[in-house]
Amino acid sequence: MENRLVHHDKDRTFDRIFHPRSVAVIGVSAQGNGFGSGILDALSAIGFGGHLHGVNPKGGEYRGRTLHRSISDIQDTIDFAIIAVPAHQVPDTLADCLKRGVAGAEILSAGFSETDTSEGTALERQVKEIAGRGIRVVGPNCFGIYCPRSGLTLLPGPDLSRISGPVAFLSQSGGMSVDFAHIGNWMGVRFSKVISFGNGADLRETELLEYLGRDPETRVVAMYMEGVEDGSEFLQVLKDVASRKPVIVLKGGLSEAGSRMVASHTRVIWESALRQAGAVQVGDLWELAQTSLAFSLLPVREYRGISVAGGGGALGVSAGDLAERHGLVLPAFEKSLSEKILEVLPKPGSSAKNPVDAANPFVGPDAFRHVFSHAGTDPRIDVQVLIQLLHHYKAIAMSLGLDSLRQITPYVQLAQAMHDAREAAGKPVIMVMPDFKQGKESLDIEEMIRDARQVFLEKNIPVFSDLGDALCAIGHVSTYASRLRSRGLSQ
Amino acid sequence: MENRLVHHDKDRTFDRIFHPRSVAVIGVSAQGNGFGSGILDALSAIGFGGHLHGVNPKGGEYRGRTLHRSISDIQDTIDFAIIAVPAHQVPDTLADCLKRGVAGAEILSAGFSETDTSEGTALERQVKEIAGRGIRVVGPNCFGIYCPRSGLTLLPGPDLSRISGPVAFLSQSGGMSVDFAHIGNWMGVRFSKVISFGNGADLRETELLEYLGRDPETRVVAMYMEGVEDGSEFLQVLKDVASRKPVIVLKGGLSEAGSRMVASHTRVIWESALRQAGAVQVGDLWELAQTSLAFSLLPVREYRGISVAGGGGALGVSAGDLAERHGLVLPAFEKSLSEKILEVLPKPGSSAKNPVDAANPFVGPDAFRHVFSHAGTDPRIDVQVLIQLLHHYKAIAMSLGLDSLRQITPYVQLAQAMHDAREAAGKPVIMVMPDFKQGKESLDIEEMIRDARQVFLEKNIPVFSDLGDALCAIGHVSTYASRLRSRGLSQ
Repeated sequence: MENRLVHHDKDRTFDRIFHPRSVAVIGVSAQGNGFGSGILDALSAIGFGGHLHGVNPKGGEYRGRTLHRSISDIQDTIDFAIIAVPAHQVPDTLADCLKRGVAGAEILSAGFSETDTSEGTALERQVKEIAGRGIRVVGPNCFGIYCPRSGLTLLPGPDLSRISGPVAFLSQSGGMSVDFAHIGNWMGVRFSKVISFGNGADLRETELLEYLGRDPETRVVAMYMEGVEDGSEFLQVLKDVASRKPVIVLKGGLSEAGSRMVASHTRVIWESALRQAGAVQVGDLWELAQTSLAFSLLPVREYRGISVAGGGGALGVSAGDLAERHGLVLPAFEKSLSEKILEVLPKPGSSAKNPVDAANPFVGPDAFRHVFSHAGTDPRIDVQVLIQLLHHYKAIAMSLGLDSLRQITPYVQLAQAMHDAREAAGKPVIMVMPDFKQGKESLDIEEMIRDARQVFLEKNIPVFSDLGDALCAIGHVSTYASRLRSRGLSQ
Repeated sequence: MENRLVHHDKDRTFDRIFHPRSVAVIGVSAQGNGFGSGILDALSAIGFGGHLHGVNPKGGEYRGRTLHRSISDIQDTIDFAIIAVPAHQVPDTLADCLKRGVAGAEILSAGFSETDTSEGTALERQVKEIAGRGIRVVGPNCFGIYCPRSGLTLLPGPDLSRISGPVAFLSQSGGMSVDFAHIGNWMGVRFSKVISFGNGADLRETELLEYLGRDPETRVVAMYMEGVEDGSEFLQVLKDVASRKPVIVLKGGLSEAGSRMVASHTRVIWESALRQAGAVQVGDLWELAQTSLAFSLLPVREYRGISVAGGGGALGVSAGDLAERHGLVLPAFEKSLSEKILEVLPKPGSSAKNPVDAANPFVGPDAFRHVFSHAGTDPRIDVQVLIQLLHHYKAIAMSLGLDSLRQITPYVQLAQAMHDAREAAGKPVIMVMPDFKQGKESLDIEEMIRDARQVFLEKNIPVFSDLGDALCAIGHVSTYASRLRSRGLSQ
């Protein structure tokens, strides 16, 4: 009960931080130099909906906005402050914010413990001490908070999406927070909030994870972490949150353990601890993004049998091997089903055992509609994957003298066929569009694939560039679901 | 001695096949349908330099070219035949070619053993029997031969590169041969020859590998294989060739072993046998291509210590972890070296311990020239990697009102700085250009990256899209070199 009250107070504070009615940016240069002006510009560009105030001790004006000399001069109640003054001025600035009743501040400035100097470490200790007196701090040495719903954004982040979604991302690395926010933008990963917490003087992995576990806006948590303040406390919170929401973890900093032997030992220990706590572990940023996409768009279920269909490429060939690597299988279709599927495919050259390999890349949406609707009836199939090498349509467009290969590439119809198959069988569908022609002369292919990606995403069909990536992501969802089930059984 | 004579005769035959003065395409439809017309068009488009003859039993004309009724009607000596008639006509057609003294034929037609029918299997047996009487056969059910030097090309392959290079590719899968040929085109993998051998009725993995081991045009062999006719003979040839040239193997078809337990058992046995034979093993087509690129452009040496430099992204952060995964390390620079490097980087926010993390993505070529020239003096550094998030320049281009971000993105100067660093230190340099902004509105970024890729490739600097991919490829080269050395020592 007490815990709930604490959470309630905390969540009110977090709500003021993530959805502030009023923000002060402290350290805005009238000349437009530095992080302060950059983040102010970014907030304007992305269309932050609340009140926005700029602060500079010298006053002045920036882009038509009068700059206040101090946060104390602002009449408005300030929910959230963004601090971008030189490191040695940060403690006083933060103390001013505390005095003004600001709920939280992100400190973009660098020059703290990351410098490995006694001065930097002392400054960070001061920040921590002030935070402890009643103002929550994100950073220092971070890129801040991105919250699509409220319009808070990262540095730099003027062009991030305002579409809100189920994925939260916690990152010790500012660069990675920006990179993932950009990747998510086109890959279709929609964020509830992204928090780059940098040195983590106050708010960091454990407390933020605990909060995201409660946050109704967040259905999937992704995180990049290096050091952890309190390993056992973190693992306990992780275990708790992971029993309710998938927590995807990319663990870095393992190679910094000194010798290679120690690093590899540390890695084994971490991997085992994270697995026991129920985390979904990934190896790099791309896997993090792809897995987040899969958890966003696929029901959390155990997936074992997949069907793979495609044509005119090598993809079907290695599908079985790739599936096996990720704990999945391609069950061979019964002869009658295989013959039924083969009816609509070109002969000779096609095969329909699973993978379904059409003889050429121009087999159209109607044929695949037939393939899906029949393959979907096999009770061993849990998810259906289509691979399309759309770049082959360029040859047709050229021979027909068409300006654009979008005119003849049937991705809209393919998306509809896949959507209908999903609705009919109640089994998810996945699209894979590799691009093997990435030369300077093939930019139109890339443009078409990007268009197509959005068409599929509009129907909530996840799109991957590579079959292996798709199967890896499906495998993660399945493993998570199966862990949930085994826990449920043992409860 | 006898063996050498056999090889000499064989190589004369192979030479007529790969560098034919005269080619007959059998099965050209006057209406332009089917594989025959397709491959004839492709050979014309790519500019095959020898004589080109079309054959159709009904005679007629195709695109201004008179079609012969039979290969016997052609006056010219035919070195190589391309057969694209229906499966049941293939044996007679092949026998005609044998009679005419054709050195070899590729059979594009499908409808043989891959159909799992007694008819198809019988037809393939006939092909095999005719081949045994003195004509070498590639296929059936294949996409044929691509040889940039002579202008033979795959089906479809009108737009493949005519630039010849050190990499040969042997593939049971036709789709994969086309896919890799396309990928190589822009990635900078240059081919000596690509052979899609399909069902492999006559020529297949072992004999072709043995030939490529002798082939002076081939310095690196890549191969995709599923079934192997004679495992122990293949492994023996592999061991021999791998002692002279890297052989990169992607093994497929493992999941078809029946049950998953059998598949996984088969996998372990294969992996171990391939490792003992000295093959470089890869997991998918992309790794195959990237590893081929690394072997093409990097000296075969043991690489252990790498330096990584970049800025404004998450890449440096996980560099050490990624390196460890591939048997590499990032040795921390001595304090004096680190301080020297830091002189030219923005402060605060930069660090120069290795990885060298510049505070922002706009640190220019002169600064990186300084970084490379100093980092290159560290005797523990064997190879230097630069990561550039060039997409960040778009923000600058927009704020300056420029039409094109190529105007301000300094990749030409970066390539020159890297080239100079490589020549000065005698240590290879690698470029990594990830693209995190792949939205529809960012096609100009992709265009710029593709331009930049060619600029780096012109200086023989390999380019990867991902740091992990680069380190994986370097790791393969290093492991191969170290195996060669340990064999040399034990001799």
